[in-house]
Amino acid sequence: MQAQRKLDPQWSKRRTEKHRRLASIAHLADGPVLRTADIVAALQALISSGDRVVLEGNNQKQADFLSRALVQIDPSKVNNLHLIMPSVSRPEHLDLFERGIARKLDFAFAGAQSLRISQLLQDGILEVGAIHTYVELYGRLYVDLCPNVVLVAGFKADRQGNLYTGSSTEDTPALVEAAAFRDGIVIAQVNEIVDDPADLPRVDIPGSWIDFVVQADKPFFLEPLFTRDPRLIKPVHVLMAMMAIRGVYERHQVQSLNHGIGFNTAAIELILPTYGEKLGLKGKICKNWTLNPHPTLIPAIESGWVESVHCFGGELGMENYVAARPDVFFTGKDGSMRSNRALCQLAGQYAVDLFIGSTLQMDGLGNSSTVTRGRLTGFGGAPNMGHDPGGRRHPTPAWLDLIETDDPLARGKKLVVQMVETFQGGGQPTIVETLDAVAVGKESGMPIAPIMIYGDDVTHVLTEEGIAYLYKARSLEERKAMIAAVAGVTPIGMHHDPASTAKLRKDGLIALPEDMGVNRNEATRSLLAAKSVADLVTWSDGLYEPPAKFRSW
Amino acid sequence: MQAQRKLDPQWSKRRTEKHRRLASIAHLADGPVLRTADIVAALQALISSGDRVVLEGNNQKQADFLSRALVQIDPSKVNNLHLIMPSVSRPEHLDLFERGIARKLDFAFAGAQSLRISQLLQDGILEVGAIHTYVELYGRLYVDLCPNVVLVAGFKADRQGNLYTGSSTEDTPALVEAAAFRDGIVIAQVNEIVDDPADLPRVDIPGSWIDFVVQADKPFFLEPLFTRDPRLIKPVHVLMAMMAIRGVYERHQVQSLNHGIGFNTAAIELILPTYGEKLGLKGKICKNWTLNPHPTLIPAIESGWVESVHCFGGELGMENYVAARPDVFFTGKDGSMRSNRALCQLAGQYAVDLFIGSTLQMDGLGNSSTVTRGRLTGFGGAPNMGHDPGGRRHPTPAWLDLIETDDPLARGKKLVVQMVETFQGGGQPTIVETLDAVAVGKESGMPIAPIMIYGDDVTHVLTEEGIAYLYKARSLEERKAMIAAVAGVTPIGMHHDPASTAKLRKDGLIALPEDMGVNRNEATRSLLAAKSVADLVTWSDGLYEPPAKFRSW
Repeated sequence: MQAQRKLDPQWSKRRTEKHRRLASIAHLADGPVLRTADIVAALQALISSGDRVVLEGNNQKQADFLSRALVQIDPSKVNNLHLIMPSVSRPEHLDLFERGIARKLDFAFAGAQSLRISQLLQDGILEVGAIHTYVELYGRLYVDLCPNVVLVAGFKADRQGNLYTGSSTEDTPALVEAAAFRDGIVIAQVNEIVDDPADLPRVDIPGSWIDFVVQADKPFFLEPLFTRDPRLIKPVHVLMAMMAIRGVYERHQVQSLNHGIGFNTAAIELILPTYGEKLGLKGKICKNWTLNPHPTLIPAIESGWVESVHCFGGELGMENYVAARPDVFFTGKDGSMRSNRALCQLAGQYAVDLFIGSTLQMDGLGNSSTVTRGRLTGFGGAPNMGHDPGGRRHPTPAWLDLIETDDPLARGKKLVVQMVETFQGGGQPTIVETLDAVAVGKESGMPIAPIMIYGDDVTHVLTEEGIAYLYKARSLEERKAMIAAVAGVTPIGMHHDPASTAKLRKDGLIALPEDMGVNRNEATRSLLAAKSVADLVTWSDGLYEPPAKFRSW
Repeated sequence: MQAQRKLDPQWSKRRTEKHRRLASIAHLADGPVLRTADIVAALQALISSGDRVVLEGNNQKQADFLSRALVQIDPSKVNNLHLIMPSVSRPEHLDLFERGIARKLDFAFAGAQSLRISQLLQDGILEVGAIHTYVELYGRLYVDLCPNVVLVAGFKADRQGNLYTGSSTEDTPALVEAAAFRDGIVIAQVNEIVDDPADLPRVDIPGSWIDFVVQADKPFFLEPLFTRDPRLIKPVHVLMAMMAIRGVYERHQVQSLNHGIGFNTAAIELILPTYGEKLGLKGKICKNWTLNPHPTLIPAIESGWVESVHCFGGELGMENYVAARPDVFFTGKDGSMRSNRALCQLAGQYAVDLFIGSTLQMDGLGNSSTVTRGRLTGFGGAPNMGHDPGGRRHPTPAWLDLIETDDPLARGKKLVVQMVETFQGGGQPTIVETLDAVAVGKESGMPIAPIMIYGDDVTHVLTEEGIAYLYKARSLEERKAMIAAVAGVTPIGMHHDPASTAKLRKDGLIALPEDMGVNRNEATRSLLAAKSVADLVTWSDGLYEPPAKFRSW
């Protein structure tokens, strides 16, 4: 299977180097299988100083056995690595920098490690190449960031290296291909190695793409990042969810969409079977989703609202529920889900009507960022889905509905909705004069400010006050006034002249709840189809198995 | 490998229906292997009226055995199919509509069939869903256009259905995954079925994703779409290529890029080793490419200009050359290339500095289309790569160089260059008052005009007259004047006041050859590193094997 042509050494330096490295650990390998105990020695031989190393680091799935091993290699032998990681999530990811094993970092997201990245950057211990969106980072793996070594995680492998990823396929295929097809080295940790290929439920990545598999000391870590406990949803979230349904989804006929991770959007999911049903909207809106398998979507699925959900990643506890609903979710012949972040981000960028998300700070023009002082979170997929993709050509009712001119060359627009409470918990205003990100960018010497979503891509701002239909703004001044009109008692909102609110309402540029037929008195938790995680389990007929930290029973 | 959980029939209708269809042809199948002679009967049983069917139809690779078989099914039994095709290229693709087997078409490109599609549309025999970019169409396969059946082509398969695509992997993985993981049916034609899995050079798509493989009556058709004969490159192309190098690539430090298919860009490729070398630009520009393996890139590769090329598809005759240059191209352990249109389009959208292409018509604001009267060509990948991706966050020198404000929130811009001669062969002006596409869109009842690239995404217009630096335009009026200034003796150019040219030059908004140090006298064919296909073969050391129609010896 690996017959090599006779190659001119001048044109096959990468392959020669790869074979040199593979040969150097031949004594440690049984075909593609490495022993668990040999992993540190193997990594030390397979990786060279200055290499570009992809470490998986996804939003949920973590190749944590490999990252814990990588930290143990000798920095006097292997150092100055350039790490490429979709998501920086684990302490050892940054230990690599403190130990001098790694030097440069290109990444897309850093949830739990965002404070420490910021600190290491200030201390000169870590150098950031750039903060990316996920797909942008994958794209560079095939252009100017081709990796030497790729370290990933799967569920099972056979002794030929065939890999079964389980539900959490996530970023793995896009990361592996970049090395497998440019003479890089691919190493996969798995929870189990099976002797008989027929014992693999299915193959997600062929063995001919993978150099080594190694059984991890314990199953890979998976973070339940998309589970929102309905108990924490407040009446204000319900009010905003009602406005989203009437003032955005119903009004523009939003049929395909992506939801962010917050309680706001969880509230929308949970009132579809109650409030949405009452409005007669089932089958008319919210049919096709690009979304992680949110537990809060279970009642809408069970009530027949949802035709399809394609997933970026999996969600811990949702495996059996997803497998039991193959008409809705993407599952393989073996019955388990295959998620795929690259394809789902592509779909979320190009094929859905609407992206709705939240942010920590938004300025008066609608620019937003999750980067605040001392916190370098990165953006994940938001900038990719939260912009109007200029390459889109197919029309849908929602997309066409945002055309505001009679220019014969006019095109539709993706709906990008910022759904924010005007204040964060702790009394910090969400809507601010200037984003912290501007100063952070300057102080960190970034060539551009780390903006998550640019104001000119935002079509709607939805707060507890109302909705600003920004796509209708005819000038920057008007856009500012519209945002200020729904900015409540934030400094931006306080500068707003209340007299102009009436005119903005009359012109249809903003709408208050009553303008869209939303009754504030109805906005109570009783509209939630599930009020607790236990309710979600009941809706799922016991198929959803929430992680321990979400169980109160 | 295919153990099924006990599923609630209400939630597994797709799977039940799939199993019903598979069972109906159990007598025709030997595991996943179908006999060549049974294909029409099998398709007739596996496809139902009204199904969404993906037929591969790519830019180059054609599942032509399957399309020829599909045309033979009985339209009284199977009809009203909704065809989804990246590229409509073969006569039988449209025979499907004339025979009533298919009714609706969603597609991205239609080269040779563009006239006939237009005719069938007018005659009411074919209904167009939308014209897409490639990635947009893939995205919809996971959202609102999930296919029931996917018909693809590969090079070899084994008796477990494992698929080796050869160099022309192209769209196949993105198409197959959409059906394999939503209980659709996947059928692959191959040139050869091998008994021993070890006889597959590598696996591109695992057998557990594929339902049936069938040996085609003859090898799949592959169109050499990206081969440009250097003999047809004219001095004016050389002049424009010189301007591109000095006025765009050198000026903005373009390091990563995509080239279109025309003689203009072929000329750039061919003068890198001569003109580019003389300017000392090697290693400074044009290092990382997203590109089909253009034969005209061979001299630049051989001269050491090119670090990497990731390919959308393959190119007939380039197989051995590509396999012999693994440091440059993406090849597998077996030594042959794996192209991947989805990933390459992602890279071409998000990871490269520049897209440069040509068009049939451009209006005075820079809007362009290849759709002209009577010709519905579609757009392929151009709209995807020819726009500024709003989700991009990583900086490169070229991207940053296009910032024209001191706004602290400013971001860079992708370079989108339209490189056009002011007149087409036959004396038709390229730069026109109004695009034909506007009328075509109206007459065909399209909800938006079929624009390929929108003017506000175009950063540079390059004609034989000079370069308009559109990204510097401060108003629509100024943009118009800049384009008119390089529009030559087209109607748009004739209305231009020559007096204003001097001011535009002085302000650096446009540049004539002399302004960028380009000597018109040097613009001769003698700058071409290869002047014929035979020269390309020589450069390649005999590795490039041009198709017969490009051989004159």
